[in-house]
Amino acid sequence: MMRTEKEKMILGELYFSEDPELVFDRRKAREKMRRINLENDSARRSELIKEVLCACGQHIFIEHDFAFDYGYNIKVGENFYANFHCTFLDTCPITIGKNGMLAPNVQLYTATHPLHPVKRNSGLEYGKPITIGDNVWIGGGAIIVPGVTLGDNVVVAAGAVVTKSFADNQVVAGNPARVIKEIDING
Amino acid sequence: MMRTEKEKMILGELYFSEDPELVFDRRKAREKMRRINLENDSARRSELIKEVLCACGQHIFIEHDFAFDYGYNIKVGENFYANFHCTFLDTCPITIGKNGMLAPNVQLYTATHPLHPVKRNSGLEYGKPITIGDNVWIGGGAIIVPGVTLGDNVVVAAGAVVTKSFADNQVVAGNPARVIKEIDING
Amino acid sequence: MMRTEKEKMILGELYFSEDPELVFDRRKAREKMRRINLENDSARRSELIKEVLCACGQHIFIEHDFAFDYGYNIKVGENFYANFHCTFLDTCPITIGKNGMLAPNVQLYTATHPLHPVKRNSGLEYGKPITIGDNVWIGGGAIIVPGVTLGDNVVVAAGAVVTKSFADNQVVAGNPARVIKEIDING
Repeated sequence: MMRTEKEKMILGELYFSEDPELVFDRRKAREKMRRINLENDSARRSELIKEVLCACGQHIFIEHDFAFDYGYNIKVGENFYANFHCTFLDTCPITIGKNGMLAPNVQLYTATHPLHPVKRNSGLEYGKPITIGDNVWIGGGAIIVPGVTLGDNVVVAAGAVVTKSFADNQVVAGNPARVIKEIDING
Repeated sequence: MMRTEKEKMILGELYFSEDPELVFDRRKAREKMRRINLENDSARRSELIKEVLCACGQHIFIEHDFAFDYGYNIKVGENFYANFHCTFLDTCPITIGKNGMLAPNVQLYTATHPLHPVKRNSGLEYGKPITIGDNVWIGGGAIIVPGVTLGDNVVVAAGAVVTKSFADNQVVAGNPARVIKEIDING
Repeated sequence: MMRTEKEKMILGELYFSEDPELVFDRRKAREKMRRINLENDSARRSELIKEVLCACGQHIFIEHDFAFDYGYNIKVGENFYANFHCTFLDTCPITIGKNGMLAPNVQLYTATHPLHPVKRNSGLEYGKPITIGDNVWIGGGAIIVPGVTLGDNVVVAAGAVVTKSFADNQVVAGNPARVIKEIDING
């Protein structure tokens, strides 16, 4: 059975982003994004966000200028908070555990492109999921690239560019991000 | 005498961000932020910004998509200019001297959280002030973390992540930022 | 014959940004920027963008929250795509070849200022052009500083801060950006 472009996209296979179903989904997502970012009432705002995400906890809050590709590939746990101007490119699943805390301008990118220009210009692209554990705090302006997994309790310093996965309880910083501290979870 | 959560916040002590007074202040600040960012007339825009800040010089200009937490902890001197999309998290005082010049996407963060997940999830948080001297120029996308002091005439390169304080006349760059040049002030 | 401040600006000479012609041009540009970013229909949006740019290909798309200084110094080739929140400071020419692909939050800065505070506070500033070849892909949150030239097929990793020029077929990453890979164009 042939997969649709949307199915390929979510599975991380090469797909055409100009596929009509995906173009339609992105247009719908842009409209919802605008409604979310124009909504001043924080309760109604959270309701609009819940309609867009794949799944989320009861208590979630995302400040204004939230940007995303589709929304339906984003799953956040209970007590999720994201500050101003966060950008989630969710061609593949973005999964965040409970108590996720994102500072302003955090960027989660699952979308990527072929390195070879001829292949890239063909319009074929692909992605890799981002998976983030419970109790993760991501500092301002930090960037997470496609395919990264972060364990529970990880803290990402402001401005870090996270290019590989990190296990539980690490504090990471820098470009590329490296472990700068281990959190003593029993401390 | 017991301090209010707001007093604790400004003093850099642990406080509950969900305190009703602070929730109210943030909601008011969000409304003012929207009005500022929707205002096309630059003179009226500057007037709205002056109402929000703790103190500022006569000639100030902040381009659109300015984001802040409260506004009332921000003090900027005469001849202040901030370009597009600057983000100021001002749970603690942000103080900038005269002739401050900020490129687009500059991020000043006084807000921080406990590293231990149980403490962080309790909702307790704290901050550290950011203090910037006269004639400081901060390049595009640069990030200043809580507690940093920058002396007079400091230049922060585009994309720098400033994790510690620097004295007068330094040019700093990188992640973490390091001195790359000293400005000959008599030159 | 004396040059106007606008002519000096575009040529990369010291100029006064408060020159009335430039103040007027920036005000017009801000109005157009707002209209562009409020336009939901992607075809009309692209038309509005084409009116602002110096020159561009037939097929271009720039997602919302595009920010620029003047617009008339920006030239992009056929099949140009820029994702959310890109910032172009175009006091000097920004030239991008065909098939340019920009991720969200990409920042292209041609504008700079004197390092000496007295000179900088005089209001004199200057810029250097940014020139980007064909088939260039710039990753999320990457920053390109004034004077940089990138060859054909260059890939800039997410979060890179590009402080010098790079030749064809390089993949660059980090702050400051360095070559991490060469693309085998015949591969």
